[in-house]
Amino acid sequence: MTNDRLVFFFGNGKAEGKAAQKELLGGKGANLAEMTNMGIPVPPGFTISTRVCHHYSLATAEGGPDSPDRFPDGLQEQVGEALERLEEAIRRRLGDPGAPLLVSVRSGAAVSMPGMMDTILNLGLNHETTEGLAAETGNPRFAWDSFRRFLQMYGNVVLGIPSERFEKRLKAAMRECGVERDADLEASRLETLAGEYEAIVLEETGRGFPMDPKAQLWGAVEAVLGSWNNERAILYRRLHDIQGLLGTAVNVQAMVFGNQGEDSGTGVCFTRDPSTGERKPYGEFLRNAQGEDVVAGVRTPQPIAELHQAMPEVADRLAKVMRTLEEHYRDMQDIEFTIQKGELFLLQTRNGKRTARAALKIAVDMVDEGLIDEEEALLRIDATQLEQLLHPSFDKEAPKDLLARGIPASPGSAAGIVALDPDTAVRMAAEGKTPILVRNETSPEDLKGMASSAGFLTMRGGKTSHAAVVARQMGKVCVSGCGAMQIDEEDRSVSFDGRRIREGEEISLDGSLGEVYAGRVPTVEAGIPEDLTRVLSWADRRRRLKIRTNADTPKDNRKAREFGAEGIGLCRTEHMFFEEDRILHVRKMILARNDEERREALATLLPMQRGDFLDIFEVMDGFPCNIRLLDPPLHEFLPHDPETRAAVAEEMGVSEEELRQRVADLSESNPMLGHRGCRLGITHPEIYEMQMRAILEAACEAVAGGVHVLPEIMIPLSSAASEVGVLRRRLEAVAAKVFEEKRKRVSYQIGTMIETPRAALTASEIALEAEFFSFGTNDLTQMTFGFSRDDVAGFLPAYLETGILERDPFEGIDLKGVGRLMRIAVEEGRKTRPGLKVGICGESGGDPASILFCHRLELDYVSLSPYRVPTARLAAAQAALREKKPG
Amino acid sequence: MTNDRLVFFFGNGKAEGKAAQKELLGGKGANLAEMTNMGIPVPPGFTISTRVCHHYSLATAEGGPDSPDRFPDGLQEQVGEALERLEEAIRRRLGDPGAPLLVSVRSGAAVSMPGMMDTILNLGLNHETTEGLAAETGNPRFAWDSFRRFLQMYGNVVLGIPSERFEKRLKAAMRECGVERDADLEASRLETLAGEYEAIVLEETGRGFPMDPKAQLWGAVEAVLGSWNNERAILYRRLHDIQGLLGTAVNVQAMVFGNQGEDSGTGVCFTRDPSTGERKPYGEFLRNAQGEDVVAGVRTPQPIAELHQAMPEVADRLAKVMRTLEEHYRDMQDIEFTIQKGELFLLQTRNGKRTARAALKIAVDMVDEGLIDEEEALLRIDATQLEQLLHPSFDKEAPKDLLARGIPASPGSAAGIVALDPDTAVRMAAEGKTPILVRNETSPEDLKGMASSAGFLTMRGGKTSHAAVVARQMGKVCVSGCGAMQIDEEDRSVSFDGRRIREGEEISLDGSLGEVYAGRVPTVEAGIPEDLTRVLSWADRRRRLKIRTNADTPKDNRKAREFGAEGIGLCRTEHMFFEEDRILHVRKMILARNDEERREALATLLPMQRGDFLDIFEVMDGFPCNIRLLDPPLHEFLPHDPETRAAVAEEMGVSEEELRQRVADLSESNPMLGHRGCRLGITHPEIYEMQMRAILEAACEAVAGGVHVLPEIMIPLSSAASEVGVLRRRLEAVAAKVFEEKRKRVSYQIGTMIETPRAALTASEIALEAEFFSFGTNDLTQMTFGFSRDDVAGFLPAYLETGILERDPFEGIDLKGVGRLMRIAVEEGRKTRPGLKVGICGESGGDPASILFCHRLELDYVSLSPYRVPTARLAAAQAALREKKPG
Repeated sequence: MTNDRLVFFFGNGKAEGKAAQKELLGGKGANLAEMTNMGIPVPPGFTISTRVCHHYSLATAEGGPDSPDRFPDGLQEQVGEALERLEEAIRRRLGDPGAPLLVSVRSGAAVSMPGMMDTILNLGLNHETTEGLAAETGNPRFAWDSFRRFLQMYGNVVLGIPSERFEKRLKAAMRECGVERDADLEASRLETLAGEYEAIVLEETGRGFPMDPKAQLWGAVEAVLGSWNNERAILYRRLHDIQGLLGTAVNVQAMVFGNQGEDSGTGVCFTRDPSTGERKPYGEFLRNAQGEDVVAGVRTPQPIAELHQAMPEVADRLAKVMRTLEEHYRDMQDIEFTIQKGELFLLQTRNGKRTARAALKIAVDMVDEGLIDEEEALLRIDATQLEQLLHPSFDKEAPKDLLARGIPASPGSAAGIVALDPDTAVRMAAEGKTPILVRNETSPEDLKGMASSAGFLTMRGGKTSHAAVVARQMGKVCVSGCGAMQIDEEDRSVSFDGRRIREGEEISLDGSLGEVYAGRVPTVEAGIPEDLTRVLSWADRRRRLKIRTNADTPKDNRKAREFGAEGIGLCRTEHMFFEEDRILHVRKMILARNDEERREALATLLPMQRGDFLDIFEVMDGFPCNIRLLDPPLHEFLPHDPETRAAVAEEMGVSEEELRQRVADLSESNPMLGHRGCRLGITHPEIYEMQMRAILEAACEAVAGGVHVLPEIMIPLSSAASEVGVLRRRLEAVAAKVFEEKRKRVSYQIGTMIETPRAALTASEIALEAEFFSFGTNDLTQMTFGFSRDDVAGFLPAYLETGILERDPFEGIDLKGVGRLMRIAVEEGRKTRPGLKVGICGESGGDPASILFCHRLELDYVSLSPYRVPTARLAAAQAALREKKPG
Repeated sequence: MTNDRLVFFFGNGKAEGKAAQKELLGGKGANLAEMTNMGIPVPPGFTISTRVCHHYSLATAEGGPDSPDRFPDGLQEQVGEALERLEEAIRRRLGDPGAPLLVSVRSGAAVSMPGMMDTILNLGLNHETTEGLAAETGNPRFAWDSFRRFLQMYGNVVLGIPSERFEKRLKAAMRECGVERDADLEASRLETLAGEYEAIVLEETGRGFPMDPKAQLWGAVEAVLGSWNNERAILYRRLHDIQGLLGTAVNVQAMVFGNQGEDSGTGVCFTRDPSTGERKPYGEFLRNAQGEDVVAGVRTPQPIAELHQAMPEVADRLAKVMRTLEEHYRDMQDIEFTIQKGELFLLQTRNGKRTARAALKIAVDMVDEGLIDEEEALLRIDATQLEQLLHPSFDKEAPKDLLARGIPASPGSAAGIVALDPDTAVRMAAEGKTPILVRNETSPEDLKGMASSAGFLTMRGGKTSHAAVVARQMGKVCVSGCGAMQIDEEDRSVSFDGRRIREGEEISLDGSLGEVYAGRVPTVEAGIPEDLTRVLSWADRRRRLKIRTNADTPKDNRKAREFGAEGIGLCRTEHMFFEEDRILHVRKMILARNDEERREALATLLPMQRGDFLDIFEVMDGFPCNIRLLDPPLHEFLPHDPETRAAVAEEMGVSEEELRQRVADLSESNPMLGHRGCRLGITHPEIYEMQMRAILEAACEAVAGGVHVLPEIMIPLSSAASEVGVLRRRLEAVAAKVFEEKRKRVSYQIGTMIETPRAALTASEIALEAEFFSFGTNDLTQMTFGFSRDDVAGFLPAYLETGILERDPFEGIDLKGVGRLMRIAVEEGRKTRPGLKVGICGESGGDPASILFCHRLELDYVSLSPYRVPTARLAAAQAALREKKPG
C-alpha cells in the first residue's frame, strides 16, 4: 500500500520519509525527514507528496480550479490522520484555545526554487486561539502580532489581496503611534490592526476571513499546490532549465516562534561561505523575528558571527548541528533555523547554492578533507558558471569615483547603465545595452529584468536577500543594503548622498568589495584561479572530447591557449577583412569592374591574410587550425548608410551613385539563404584561391621557422557533395602551385561545415569529398527551425513564455531536430569515410547538455570562444563520467 | 567476345545490331540496323558504339584532348574491318579515284538530341576522288559542289573554323556570277571556290586540309565523340533532363546523293502530322539537294504531298515504307530519306516528336487501330506537355491587326515583345517580360534564348526547320518561313512589308494558322479536347493518387474542377487579403494601436472572408477544401514605396511618419525565416480566430444550403508539435463557440504544413496534434538547401552550368535532401497516427518525376495549380503503371 501513501509524517525523532525521496517529498520535505531521523531538532509535521500536486495540476487544467476531482482519493483521510499524529507529538490542537497548534504550510519541490512558490505561516490563528496564545505565553503582543501577520500573509497568498493594502495600514499604525519598527507596536494596537485587516479581506473578497483552522489549512494547501503553475514559477523553471518534476510537495509543520522576545530569533546560514568557499559559516540572524523577515530583506540582519555574543549556547549548538549535517550530506549546507526562547530548531537544510569560485574551492577542499573523491568533485561543479571566473575584473590601479558602499552580496565586476525597473532593463538589453538594475529591493516579479541585467544594486537587504541569492545563482554581480542610495522614481534618477545619477547613465559595481562607482571602471584580465587549474587537470584526465576555440585574432588565440584550447575550431577569415587597413581593398575587390581589377585588389590583400595566418600558426604551434574560407555575402562589406557611402565612394574614386547602385544590386531578400558561403567561392573563384594561397604560403613560412602546422581548410555552407568536390579540386590546384613555387609541401586537410539540413542529409556523399566535418549549429538551427536569429525577437519570447519551446534553440542544441540531423551526418559520414574527423563550432554547442550530446555522438572536438574553453573542458569530463554512471 | 564488340556493321539486308540496342548503338544506329534487317533500303555502314564515347569522355577529361589512351583497345582494328566490309558491300573504296566511297559520319545517342551534336557529309573527297566522282557520274558540277560542301562542313565541325568565313566566299561567288541559288554555280567556279576554301583552312589552322580519306574519317569520328560534351549538348541534356547515357554512337554510312540532278532529292517526313496527330504523312522534300538543306531551313522545301506529282513511283514506295515502319514500331515515325537518281534510300527512322495535341490523337487513334493498348497509350504521352493544350488561345472574335503570314510550324497562341537575339530574350525573361524571339533562322546556339521565349518567328525555314522542331518539343509557338519579314539589326527593328515593329514592342503569333499580329491579341479559355477527356478517363481508372488544386479564387476553383481536381489542396487566404476592398482593413488591423482597434478591423474582414469561403465550399461541393491560415509576414501588406505610403497614410488617417516607422519596425533581415506562418498565429491570436470563425460560419451556411463541405484547416510553417497543439486548442475553442451560436456542427480537420526541416524530423510528435500533413516543398526546399528562392539568381545559373546541381531544385523534388525529409515525415507521422492523410501542395511536386515519388511514398494526393491538374492526373496514372512494370 506504500504506493498509495500521499502524506508522510515526521516527528518525535522518527520520520516516514528520507533524504533519497526528493522526487516524492521535495527537497525540503525529504531533508526534514532525514534530519528528524538524524536526531536533529526539527518541529514535527508532515509532507504531502508531489504526486498530489501532479494530480492537482492535471485535474485543474482539465476541469478548472474548482474541479471536484482535484485531490486524489484518500488525501483528506491521510491529512486528517497525520494532523492527529502531529497534535499528539506536540501536544497542541488546531483551533484549541487552550493549547493552540499553529502550523506553517510551505512548498518544496525536488529542485529548490527559492521564493517562487507560496508559504503561509502562523496558520491556525483566529480570535479564540489568539486569545489563548496570549494567555498561554503571557505575551499578548506576540499573539496579536502573529495573528495580524497571518491575516496579511493568508490574505495575500491564498485570497489574492495585494500586500500593499495591508502594508499601508501597518505603516499608518506606526505613524499614528510614532514608532519606527513594527516590533514597537503594542498589543492593543496590533489587535485593532487585525480588525482593520479583517475589514480589508471582507471588502476585497466579499466575504469574511475564514476563521476555521481546518478550512485555513485546506486553503493554504491548495494555494501552495496552485503556486506550482504560477507565472513566476514557470519562468523560473524555464530560466533554470528545470524539467520533468511532478510538482511541489506541501510541508505542514508545527510553528516555532522566533518572535517571542529577545531570547528568540531566526536565521539562515551556509556551512561554508557561498561566495568564496571559505570554510566558515556564513549567514545572518535577526532577533525577535520570524524567518520571512530575513529572507525578504526588509530588515537588515546581523552577521552569524555575532550570534556567539548574543546567545553563546545556541551558537555552539548550531555549529555542532552544521558539522553533523555537512558530514552527513558531504556537501555545503544551506540551513534555516529558529530559536524559540533559547531553544534551537532546524527548519530546513539543503545543498547550498554557491558562486563558481566557491564551488571550486569547496570541491577541492572536500577532496582534500577526504569527504568526496575527484570524480564526485568534478560532477558537483556547475560548468556553465566557470566562465564568470575568467572574465576581466576592475583594474585595481584605475582611478575610481566611489559613490557608495553596500553589502558585497555576489562577487564580480559589472559596468552598465542604470535601469530603475525590470521592464526598462529588459528593453535596454534588447537594444544591445548592458543594464544594471537599481531597486530598493527585488522580488520574484523582477526576475525577467534581473536576467537581462549585468548586476543588481539594492538599497535594502543583506547577503541572503532575494537579490543576493538570485545574483549568485545567475552568476551576476550584486551589491545589496546600500542605504546611502535614494531612488527618485518620478525623476528617473538615483542619488548617492546627494550625487544624482540618471537612469541610462553609467555606473560600475564591485560585488566582491560591495562598492558602487560612477562611470565605467576599466577592467583587467583575470588569471586562472589555482583551484580551477587543479579541477581542470582532473577533468583533462577524464574527458574524451578535445576542446578547441573559435578565435579570429592572435589575441583571442593566445587567450584560448592559456585557457587550454587544443587548436582552433573556427577561424573566421572575414573578420580579418573588416580591419581598417583592409576594408578598402576588400571593397575594391567587390566593386571591381573586371577580373584584372579584382585580382589587383586581392593581390593587395594576400600578404595581409598571409601575415594573419602565420601569426595564428605560431600561436597554435603543434595544434590543428581550422580556417574557414570567406562566408558572408559581399554586401556585408559595403557601406549601407549615406554618409559612409559618400566617404567610401570618394576614397575609392567611384561615383556615389555607382556605389549606391552596386550596394543595391548586391542586396538580397534573405541574405542568410543567399549568395554567400561556398556559393560565393564557386562564383568568385579568385577569392578562395587568394585565401588558399595565403594559408599555404603562411604554412610554408611557419614550417621554415620550425613551427608545426596542421591547417584545416574549411568550406562553408555546402549543401551538396559536388560543391565541396569542385572547390576541393580548385584548392588542390592552388596548393600544388604554391608547393611548387616554395619547393616545400605541407600537409593540410580540406573539409566542410555542416550547416544546412541538406549537408547533413547527404553526408555520406559529402564525406567522399571532405576530410572533416564541422557542425555550424547556428545556421543549422536557423534552417532546421526556419528561424532567422535576427528576427526571432517578434515571437521567441512568446514561445518561451507559453512553453511552446522549453528553451531558446540557439542556446543549446535542439536534440530532436538539429541533433537528429547531426546524428545522421556523423553516422552516415563515417560510413563512407571511417574515422572521419567531426567537430562542432557553433556556440550553441557550448552548453554542458550539448557537450554531453557531442560526447555521446562521438565527435572529436567541440570549439568555443576562448572564455568558454574551461567550461567545455569540465563539461567534457562530466560527460565522460556521466557515461560511466548514467544520470 | 560480344562484350568487346565496339563496331556494328549493317548492309546487304543484314545487320549486327537491332532496335533494342539503343543504349549501345544510339537511336539512329539501332534503327538503321533494324531497318536493314527489315529489308528496307538503307545505305550500308557501321555504328561505333556509345561505349567508345564513354571511354573517350573519361580519358580526355583525365588526360586532355590528346590523351594517347582516348580510344579503347581494338577500336582501330574493328573500324578497319567494318570499313572493308562496307567497301565490299557497296563496291567502292575510300580514296579510290576509280570508284570513290563517300561516307557520312553522324552522331546518335540513345535519346534524340536533334542538332546538338556534329555531322559530317561527303567524307572521302579530295582532289583525286572528286575528279574520279566527276568522271564516274559525268557530273563535274555535282562532284565539285560535294567537295566544296565537304570542305566547309569539315572545316567548321572538325577544324573549328566559323562557317561564315566559307559562306562569305560562297555569296561572293554567287554575286560574281550573278546567280541566286548556289545550285546555279557552274563546276569550274565551284572548283575555284574549293581552292578558296582550302586557302581559308590553311590560313585559319596553319596547315593544309587533310586530304587522306582515312585521316578525314578519324578526324570526323573524334569530332562527333567530342561533341557529346560541347556546351550546347550539355545544356540540351539539362533542359530535357536527359541523364545516365554513356554517350553518343557514331554512324559511318555510305553516302547517297540527293543532289545528282532533278531525279534526285532529299526529304524528311513524319508518318502522321506531328502538330495535330492527323493520320497522313507530314513532311517536306527538296529536289536536287542534300539533307542538310532541308533541316537547316536555308532553302524552303516543298510539302511532301507534292512528291506524288514530282516522282510518283518514289512517292508510292515511300508510302509503303512508312506503313511498314509504323506497323513495325507501333508508333509514329520521323524519317529521313534521299532519292538518288530515282532510287529511294532511308537514312533514318525514329519515333517522331509531337505536340501534346498530336501525342493525344496518335495515342487514341492507335488504341482504336489496335496497334497499342490503353496502358501503353498512357505511358507514351508526355504528361508535362498537356498543360499547353489547356491554356487560353486567341479570341477568334477579337479584332486582329495582321502583319504577315508564315508557315504554321508549332501550334498555339503566344503574345509578347520582340527580341531580336537570344541574349536579349534571356535578359527580357529575367526582367519578368515575355519575349518572342524573331530571327532569320534559328540554330542550336540560340537554344538558351529559345527556352526563355514564348514563341519563335523566323524568316526562313519550313515545318521541319530547327525553330519548328524545337518549338514543338518545348511546347512553344512557332511561325516559320515568314518571307515578308525583314530584320534590321542596326535599327533593332523588324518590318513586315514596310510596317516597322521595334524590339521590345508587342506582337502576337498564331502558330496554328501561321499568322503574325501587331500588339497583344486577347485570349479566350480553351476547352478540354475530346482526346484528352478519353485519355484522362483511362488515367483516372489507373491512378492511386488523388489530384487537388492550389487555388484561391472561385474562378480558379471552377477552372480546376473543370480540369478534374478532386478538392483544394491549398487555399492561400492571404491572397484574399490583397483585394482592393480589403487591403485597407488589413492594414488597419496591422497598424492597430490596441486590441480594440485590431478586433474592429478584423470584424470588418470577417464577413468578407466568410463570403469567400462560402463560394469555395459551393464550388467544391463534396470535395475536401484545405484552407491555410494566414502565412506571410505582416509587412507584406504594408506599402513600402514613399508615394503609396503617403496615399495609405492619408486614407488611414495616420501620419506618414507613423506609417513609415511601423513599416520599419516590422521589416526583417530574413523575412522568409521570420515572424510569419503559425508564429504570427501564436502572437496574434485574433487573426486566426477570425479566420477560423469565417471558415466555420461559411461551412455552416453552406451545409444549410445543402452543400457537402469538408473543411481542412491548415496551420502553416510549424516547426514543433507544441505550436500545432496550442493553435489547435485555440481553434477548437472558436469552433465550439461557432457551433453553439449556429446550433449546428460541421466536421472539420486541423492539420499542418510540413515545410520546415524540423517539422519533418519531429513528424511523429506533430502527428499527435495534426490530423493531416501537407508538404510545402517550396519552403522545405529553401530551408533544406539554405537557398532563398528570391536570391538564387546570383549562383544557381552557375551551379546548373557547371553541373554542381543537375536540376533547379525548385522545379522538382530533390530526392536526396527534401525527399528524404518527406519520407521521414510520412513514415514517422503514420507511425503515431496510422492512416494520417498526407498531401503535397508545393508546385515543385507537380512534375511527373515528383509525382512518381509521391506515389511511391504513398501520399494521398498532390495539389497543383488548375492548369496542371490534367498533367498530374496522367502522371499519377503513369506512376501507378510504372510501379506495375518498372522502368
